[in-house]
Amino acid sequence: MSHPAPENSTPAPSLKPLHACIGDDLKRVDELILQQVRDDIRLIHDLSYHLIASGGKRLRPALTLACAQLCGYQEDRHVRLAACVEFIHTATLLHDDVVDDSKLRRGEATANDIWGNKPSVLVGDFLLSKAFQLMVADGSLDVLRILSDTSAVIARGEVHQMMVAGDPETTEVTYMEVITAKTAALFAAASELGAVVSGRSDKQAELRGFGMDLGIAFQLVDDALDYAAEQEALGKTIGDDFREGKITLPVLLAYADGDEKERAFWKRTMEDAEEQKPEDLQEAMRYIAKHDTINRTLERARDYCNKAHACLNGFPESDVRDALAETVDFCLSRAY
Amino acid sequence: MSHPAPENSTPAPSLKPLHACIGDDLKRVDELILQQVRDDIRLIHDLSYHLIASGGKRLRPALTLACAQLCGYQEDRHVRLAACVEFIHTATLLHDDVVDDSKLRRGEATANDIWGNKPSVLVGDFLLSKAFQLMVADGSLDVLRILSDTSAVIARGEVHQMMVAGDPETTEVTYMEVITAKTAALFAAASELGAVVSGRSDKQAELRGFGMDLGIAFQLVDDALDYAAEQEALGKTIGDDFREGKITLPVLLAYADGDEKERAFWKRTMEDAEEQKPEDLQEAMRYIAKHDTINRTLERARDYCNKAHACLNGFPESDVRDALAETVDFCLSRAY
Repeated sequence: MSHPAPENSTPAPSLKPLHACIGDDLKRVDELILQQVRDDIRLIHDLSYHLIASGGKRLRPALTLACAQLCGYQEDRHVRLAACVEFIHTATLLHDDVVDDSKLRRGEATANDIWGNKPSVLVGDFLLSKAFQLMVADGSLDVLRILSDTSAVIARGEVHQMMVAGDPETTEVTYMEVITAKTAALFAAASELGAVVSGRSDKQAELRGFGMDLGIAFQLVDDALDYAAEQEALGKTIGDDFREGKITLPVLLAYADGDEKERAFWKRTMEDAEEQKPEDLQEAMRYIAKHDTINRTLERARDYCNKAHACLNGFPESDVRDALAETVDFCLSRAY
Repeated sequence: MSHPAPENSTPAPSLKPLHACIGDDLKRVDELILQQVRDDIRLIHDLSYHLIASGGKRLRPALTLACAQLCGYQEDRHVRLAACVEFIHTATLLHDDVVDDSKLRRGEATANDIWGNKPSVLVGDFLLSKAFQLMVADGSLDVLRILSDTSAVIARGEVHQMMVAGDPETTEVTYMEVITAKTAALFAAASELGAVVSGRSDKQAELRGFGMDLGIAFQLVDDALDYAAEQEALGKTIGDDFREGKITLPVLLAYADGDEKERAFWKRTMEDAEEQKPEDLQEAMRYIAKHDTINRTLERARDYCNKAHACLNGFPESDVRDALAETVDFCLSRAY
C-alpha cells in the first residue's frame, strides 16, 4: 500500500476523493442536522445554524460514512449516526470555546463571542441531548454505548487538559493521554460506528484503531501548526495555544531540551499566560525553531499516520479505501 | 383522599415517611453516585463530590424509587435509574450556576465560585455523559428515550428562560412553559421511570402527570419564596431571582396589576438587573405585597398539588402512596 510523504512533485493530498465517495451522504447528514436544530426558540436555531453553517471539514461524520461504505454497508442508518457524531463534536467545540474564552475559530467569530457564554453552555447541552435522542431513534445499544463512553472520555480529557495547563513539566505520557481523550476518541468512535452499523463486528477493532491513530496524528499536526510561521504567512492565526498556556508537544520538547534560561521562559509564560508580553510569542518560536520541535512533532504525527494506513490493509482495494488513505495523508499534509 | 392544607394545628408535612419507605434504596443511590464519580483526575472527583455531598433533598431520585415501589417493583434497576436522574439534575445545576454566575446554592459556595466556570462546564458534561453510560448499562431504550428527551427539554427550557429574562411583559403562558421545561420535566420523567422499570406501562401516564404537577408546584413555591420576607427571617437568601432579572410569577402578576410607576420600576430593574440599586429589592417587595402576588403564586401551586394528589388516586392505599402524598404537601408547606 502506498502512502507517499507529501512532496512538491506530487499533487497535494486532498479530501476530494473522500467527498467523491460519500458526498451525497454527507449532504444528507447536513440536511438532517439542520432539520434537527430548527426550533421556535430563535436563539437555539441561530446559534446552532451558525455553528453548522460556519463549516469545518465534517471530518468526523465523514469517517462514519466512509467506514460504513468500506464495510459494504448499503442501508440508511449511517447518515443518522454520522449526524450524532457531528452533534457531539459541535457541543464539545461550543463548551471548549467557553472554557478557552476563544474569540475566533476557523477565522470566524465564535458563538460565545457573538452571543456570550450563557447560550453557548446551554445550546451545547441541547446539542448533546439531541445526539442522544438521535441515537435512541436509531435504537442500537451498541451505538449508545460507544458514543456515551466517548462523550465521557472527551469531557474527562478536557478536564485533564485544563488541569495540566500551564505546567511545562507535564510528561509526554500525560500529553498523549489528553489528546487521545479530547480528540482521538471521537475519531475512533466515528470510524468504529462504520463497522457497527454494517454488522461487521470483526472489523470494529481495526476501524477503531484507524480512527484513533488518525485522530492522534490530527491533533499533533494541529499542535505543531500553532507555532508554524508559514501558517501565519497563509493568513491563519498562530500562537493561540501559547496565549492560553496550553501544554502541547512542541512546547514539551523545547522545554525538555532547553537550557536554564529557556526553561525559566517557558515556566513564566505558561504558568501565567495572562501576564505574557507581546514579544513572548516570538521568543517561544525561536526556541521551538532552535530545538526543531515542530518537525519532531510532525514526525510523531507521521508515525501515527503510518499506523492508520496499516489499519486499512485488512480491507480489499476499493475507491473508498484509497479515499480514506488519502484522507490520512491530507491530515498530515496540512502541515506542509 | 385527604390532603389537608398545612395548618399550625397539624404537624408540618415532612419527607420522613418518604425516607422511611425508600431510605435504604436512597443510600444505595448515593453509594452508586459516589462510586461513579471516583476518578484519578482529582478535580472531577472533588467537584462531583462537593456537589453530591453538599446535599439537597434528593427529591428527584426519591421519586423514581418511590414510584417504583408504588408499582410493586421488587428488583434492583431502580437504584441505577434514580442515580441517572440525580446526575442529570446535578449537571443541570452546575451549568445553571455558570449561566447565572451564582455564588451560593443551598447556603453553600457553588462549584463555579470555588473552582471557576471552566471546571463547572466540563464536569457538568462529564456527569451528563455518566448518566447516559448508566442508562446504557441498564439497557432499556424506553428509559434512554425518556431521559434523552427530558435532557433536551431541560436545555431548551433554560435557553428559553434566558431569552425572556428581563422582560416583564412575558406572558404567563410562556412562564409556565419555561418552568415546565426547566423543572417539571425531570420530576415527570423521574416519576414515570418508576412505572417503566416495573413494566407497568398502564401507569406511565399517571405517574408522569403526578411528577409534572408536583414539579410545577415545586417551582412555583420556589419562585414565591424568593420574595418572602419570612424566609429572610429564617436565615435564607431572598432576592436572587430579582437580582438576576429572572421573570417569575410574583413579578408577572405585580407587573400586570401595577400602575404606570410600578411598571416603570419593573422595566428598569428587570431589563437592567445589573444596574439595580440596593434599595430596589425592598421596593419590589412592597409592590409584591401590595398585589398579594406571593399568595396568588402559592394558590397556583396548591392547585397543582391538588392535581398531583389526584394522580395518586389510581393506586391502592399503601405506605408509599401516603408518603408520596405527604411529599406533595411538604413541597407546598415549605412556603408556610
